[in-house]
Amino acid sequence: MQLEAIYHRPKQNWSYAYDRETIHIRIRTKRGDMDRVVAVAGDKYAWDTTVRKVPMRIFASDELFDYWEAAVKPPYRRLRYFFQLEKGTKKLWLTEKGFEKNQPAHSLEAFDYPFINPIDVFGPPAWVKDAIFYQIFPERFANGDPSNDPANVEPWGGKPTPSNFFGGDLQGVIDHLDYLSDLGINAIYFCPIFEATTNHKYDTQDYMRVDKHFGSNEKVKELVEACHKRGIRVLLDAVFNHAGATFGPFLDVKEKGAQSEYADWFHVRDWPLRVENGIPTYDTFAFEPIMPKLNTENEDVKRYLLGAAKYWIEEIGIDGWRLDVANEVDHQFWREFRQTVKAVNKDAYILGEIWHDSMMWLQGDQFDAVMNYPFTNAVLDYAAYGKIDGAGFANAIGKQLGAYPQQVGEAAFNLLDSHDTARLLTLCSGDERRMKLAALFQLTYPGTPCIYYGDEVGMSGGHDPDCRKCMVWDEAEQNGELLRFYRTLIALRKDHQALRSMDIRFLHAEARDAAIVFERRGESASERFIIAMNAGGRARTVKASARTGSWRNVFTGETVSVVNKEVTFALPEYGFTVLQLLDV
Amino acid sequence: MQLEAIYHRPKQNWSYAYDRETIHIRIRTKRGDMDRVVAVAGDKYAWDTTVRKVPMRIFASDELFDYWEAAVKPPYRRLRYFFQLEKGTKKLWLTEKGFEKNQPAHSLEAFDYPFINPIDVFGPPAWVKDAIFYQIFPERFANGDPSNDPANVEPWGGKPTPSNFFGGDLQGVIDHLDYLSDLGINAIYFCPIFEATTNHKYDTQDYMRVDKHFGSNEKVKELVEACHKRGIRVLLDAVFNHAGATFGPFLDVKEKGAQSEYADWFHVRDWPLRVENGIPTYDTFAFEPIMPKLNTENEDVKRYLLGAAKYWIEEIGIDGWRLDVANEVDHQFWREFRQTVKAVNKDAYILGEIWHDSMMWLQGDQFDAVMNYPFTNAVLDYAAYGKIDGAGFANAIGKQLGAYPQQVGEAAFNLLDSHDTARLLTLCSGDERRMKLAALFQLTYPGTPCIYYGDEVGMSGGHDPDCRKCMVWDEAEQNGELLRFYRTLIALRKDHQALRSMDIRFLHAEARDAAIVFERRGESASERFIIAMNAGGRARTVKASARTGSWRNVFTGETVSVVNKEVTFALPEYGFTVLQLLDV
Repeated sequence: MQLEAIYHRPKQNWSYAYDRETIHIRIRTKRGDMDRVVAVAGDKYAWDTTVRKVPMRIFASDELFDYWEAAVKPPYRRLRYFFQLEKGTKKLWLTEKGFEKNQPAHSLEAFDYPFINPIDVFGPPAWVKDAIFYQIFPERFANGDPSNDPANVEPWGGKPTPSNFFGGDLQGVIDHLDYLSDLGINAIYFCPIFEATTNHKYDTQDYMRVDKHFGSNEKVKELVEACHKRGIRVLLDAVFNHAGATFGPFLDVKEKGAQSEYADWFHVRDWPLRVENGIPTYDTFAFEPIMPKLNTENEDVKRYLLGAAKYWIEEIGIDGWRLDVANEVDHQFWREFRQTVKAVNKDAYILGEIWHDSMMWLQGDQFDAVMNYPFTNAVLDYAAYGKIDGAGFANAIGKQLGAYPQQVGEAAFNLLDSHDTARLLTLCSGDERRMKLAALFQLTYPGTPCIYYGDEVGMSGGHDPDCRKCMVWDEAEQNGELLRFYRTLIALRKDHQALRSMDIRFLHAEARDAAIVFERRGESASERFIIAMNAGGRARTVKASARTGSWRNVFTGETVSVVNKEVTFALPEYGFTVLQLLDV
Repeated sequence: MQLEAIYHRPKQNWSYAYDRETIHIRIRTKRGDMDRVVAVAGDKYAWDTTVRKVPMRIFASDELFDYWEAAVKPPYRRLRYFFQLEKGTKKLWLTEKGFEKNQPAHSLEAFDYPFINPIDVFGPPAWVKDAIFYQIFPERFANGDPSNDPANVEPWGGKPTPSNFFGGDLQGVIDHLDYLSDLGINAIYFCPIFEATTNHKYDTQDYMRVDKHFGSNEKVKELVEACHKRGIRVLLDAVFNHAGATFGPFLDVKEKGAQSEYADWFHVRDWPLRVENGIPTYDTFAFEPIMPKLNTENEDVKRYLLGAAKYWIEEIGIDGWRLDVANEVDHQFWREFRQTVKAVNKDAYILGEIWHDSMMWLQGDQFDAVMNYPFTNAVLDYAAYGKIDGAGFANAIGKQLGAYPQQVGEAAFNLLDSHDTARLLTLCSGDERRMKLAALFQLTYPGTPCIYYGDEVGMSGGHDPDCRKCMVWDEAEQNGELLRFYRTLIALRKDHQALRSMDIRFLHAEARDAAIVFERRGESASERFIIAMNAGGRARTVKASARTGSWRNVFTGETVSVVNKEVTFALPEYGFTVLQLLDV
């Protein structure tokens, strides 16, 4: 046994309440090292009469480790536990104190999950795990009201620059809700819509008012109501890390310096405010002078921002917030933000922008989910870039599943691109086949997929500003076949819980092999899919185990009979097959 | 390199703000496996111009691992970093994505410490790391006012039972403050003093009133003021997990059942309240019917308890709270508790009773410290029971240092016994020499030592109720030599920052050898101690490296000259030596 590989520490992803009565216990061991792992668990105040052995199962693996899990429902909500590790005839026990050669007789040195307190149980809103998001960059989606266009508006479809405008607005979104309903999405994430000077609006001037070139607060309400009628939820972008250069309090501080009543609203390192050698003397987003960082510890700043957070939910009816640069704002602010938002609407969704490890924000007191860029990277490395083989991809996915509690995976915001990256098709070097593989995985994986506007009709674009082109509405210019592919997959995901469940099993994922096969199972035995994809440039024939019976190829309609529990996939280069179990 | 042994995950004890400008980065590797580890760190928005290589040092080791640390002060409070691992000529890099064979050219896949927000920085009150606590069980310390004795009071010094009374009270403590000042302690932790039926008062009847057999609220104020005049701080015991059987709201619920306006103040599993087969139909502490668990999610309960938390600080002037059964209460309650308490007195000390891993409570939003029973266990295993050798002890200490941020260690509440355990002398099988070794380590180790009343005069006692005997005041019955030992050590600790610093180095700690030698260094170069102890039953002579110069044996006064950087300790069985550097 490789002892150094073994890891467990109470809480985080290692022991947590999955719901109000269930505790998940996990442990990590070297991959392939253990034959069996058992959790020995009981009530600390009645150990002898309650202790029992709960077998653990490997629920995920990566290159180096197996991740084991057991679910326990302790009758009095308290759980002590230690681990029994088995390899051949060898047994070893792990307690909080360390490794023991004999099974501990009592629970004193066991690990402790003290008590399941409902308020501490991390639970994103139930609707989130069934959501399929669509991200809209408002200035570029549709111009529904030319009367509110900026003076210097350019013709729709022109080349985007960092500073030009094309007149997109909220009426434009309202005008195209039929399109979105047809696509099948049921939630929209809007990039910022509040008053600001730039086309991206990440430099807020007034958090209480919609930018006049997008419409009015009433227009947002109309949009939200129209969306809700169609079963589409609406998420707005909260840029609370920093304000814009035209934000009233910042203008006051620029003018009056340390004497300004707003002096403490920002983080000023040296007065007066200025930029020296490209570095502002006040904290900003990156080193961007027009984005002064807000002091979210200041009570007045908190009152103002939390007031805005509340207003748009309570008065306008939005369904949640996406939080820009969320990890640079203090945890205490986000805790109060959560209290404020959930008090107004307990089903409001709180989505943080964090590109890195996010465990500390996903424990119930702060966010419901983060933008899952580690997922993005894994899918792109495999499907778009061919940088990793099937084994590498399965390992990257397994590592992520092992790193977070189950409910985090169920609600993770799984995007493949955004206004902050090049577009998916461009990341795939324009190869639509690769793009489809990426989208296929995204739309058949647990969590909350998000499609960046226009990807579905074949829009391309490099990094900002090129990824922020005007939406293509001319059907002749749209990729109709790609659009149908997206519609089919979205409908399939909505129809089948198996494609949203956390039960994902890799049936084929080998080193030096670009093909993978994975199975998706739902709660009902009849809910089962097997998906094969080949991210390599040469055809591959792969076999995988499958339940004996009839399966339907979702894209061709063809029926596949599985005998001897094995199915063979003939995959063209960059090809895929989706099989759905027909009978049980 | 053993890759499976390597562990780092942002936040907790692995990357944290030590103060408002310093980030500590840590990584774990297999013990002895690496020759060198370097943190490659910079600002994420200016990586190329800010990146630098920061050598890491092993600050702690245990049986399996070395723990490496580097301190970095990022000028813009943001830090990206990855690790460079070196063994012989082999180099490997660890990023958030995994191991890399080549040094990453950018920071995209690095680990991220997004921003040091002051409000999130975990900082216990500054006074705590210099505190030496004394724990008083009020019913048994001194009877200063016979007029408030319970009717059934027994003569002082009788045999304690689970239910008898001896008349100890607050006036008794006031009467003996000279004794405590002479001992040298500068903080007192009182077991509960609020109105309750039992002698231990862990079954609170009224959180706003002192038990009438102990005195009055005014008497507490008098006691606190008298303590403060002497530089002694006062900590009270907050039993917020559960109330007592005579708590008004509980009586109401017992009487009126689900119709009681207090029905939601408790966790009732089945009405009416009753006990079946020894198990109450409502949640309690353990399965104890007279200790009904409070529903700390209920707003009225919160208001009541937080009101009490505030009252005793604001009106009576206490310096903090010890929180009973702290880990079974919800995190959200403790966060609000911290806000409430720190708003009244930012230097108030919040000490949780947690016997197990406490990382989730020690990150700045909840407690300042926990009762450090893992420390207790390590010291007892070594000094009291002889269960582990010198290496085992050093490993147990190293494991604890590695498991928490530095500021946790600086303020850890290091006790050797309490009202919940047998007394130290009894745990040492009555062997005063072993007891002295334990106390010597406790009083020369970082953190906040706490002495259980009477230990210092040689009181013994098995588990509750035997550990709650009446304090021995008759000097003829006190162990005067032991008392002088405690006084000497306490004075030494107060005089020398080296004995409170986090800089502890084991100079000798070997397998199958009961002797250890460790060095303590302070901030000033002249502050240096070397301490040797032998927890074995036969004499040992051990050598250790020491700075060349003159050293003083603190207990004998003898001067020891160190030549050739080596010192020899001749340690009798269960003996010790404390050397203090005299010149620099």
